[in-house]
Amino acid sequence: ASELWRARWGADSRSLSMATATSIMRVQQLLLARFDAIAGRHGLTFARYEALVLLAFSRSGRLSMSRIGERLMVHPTSATNIVQRLVAQGFVERVPNPTDRRGAFAVITDAGREAMEAVTADLEAVDFGLGMLDDDAHRALFELLRTVRVGARDFDA
Amino acid sequence: ASELWRARWGADSRSLSMATATSIMRVQQLLLARFDAIAGRHGLTFARYEALVLLAFSRSGRLSMSRIGERLMVHPTSATNIVQRLVAQGFVERVPNPTDRRGAFAVITDAGREAMEAVTADLEAVDFGLGMLDDDAHRALFELLRTVRVGARDFDA
Repeated sequence: ASELWRARWGADSRSLSMATATSIMRVQQLLLARFDAIAGRHGLTFARYEALVLLAFSRSGRLSMSRIGERLMVHPTSATNIVQRLVAQGFVERVPNPTDRRGAFAVITDAGREAMEAVTADLEAVDFGLGMLDDDAHRALFELLRTVRVGARDFDA
Repeated sequence: ASELWRARWGADSRSLSMATATSIMRVQQLLLARFDAIAGRHGLTFARYEALVLLAFSRSGRLSMSRIGERLMVHPTSATNIVQRLVAQGFVERVPNPTDRRGAFAVITDAGREAMEAVTADLEAVDFGLGMLDDDAHRALFELLRTVRVGARDFDA
């Protein structure tokens, strides 16, 4: 679509922004389609895999639903849905939150950790779909994206 | 998460890929959250806005459901759902496809075009959320993403 926009509005800064934004969206879609297919081999979606990664690397090994939603940048309803499916698969357990009776913590199980490692190995085997970039290109791309994240006040950047 | 991965697996090429992939996903989420909020002011989501842009700039002014799904890289069910909502809002009309009785074309209405232009104006006003990048950074980022798209065989790249 960016080519059409450029034809209409000319190559000024705003159409540069449109072109870059469109490209970011497109590349994310291409990667997500690939990652979903890979996660699917292990009975997961990429979103559920991301939740497992988050839990596996959380300091206390457990996270509240609200924190999961926040970190994954998904709606609380989606976070609940993701965790419910992981619980049904035996990859996550719910434990009560002692300080909030209505809340609950999610904890990754051994089976969840194994599934996560299996997906990770497959993603690594295809270089996370980014084998067309050499190390310098990776560093340049990461830095440019970091500039965007800092500018957008990403708490993790 | 990429920092944790790097701590575990070291800064080899595969963790560079992981870091870049994570960054792409993150930046897309940050932009999407912003774009959804902007589209929301005009009763749209960014996905529905994208469908309107696609229809507005299609050569014949109309597209089949399957083509919409393909271009937006969403599941056919999601494409149908997006178009149904746009039809309910009066932004799109369904017309029969003469060569496929089960299929249908979607056509953008004048109201749809107005809503699309209004969202576009608001997105331009915030520089598509990418005001932190100067022109050179835009060009560098666009080119790096283009390398990914070509490598991933994006038909539009």
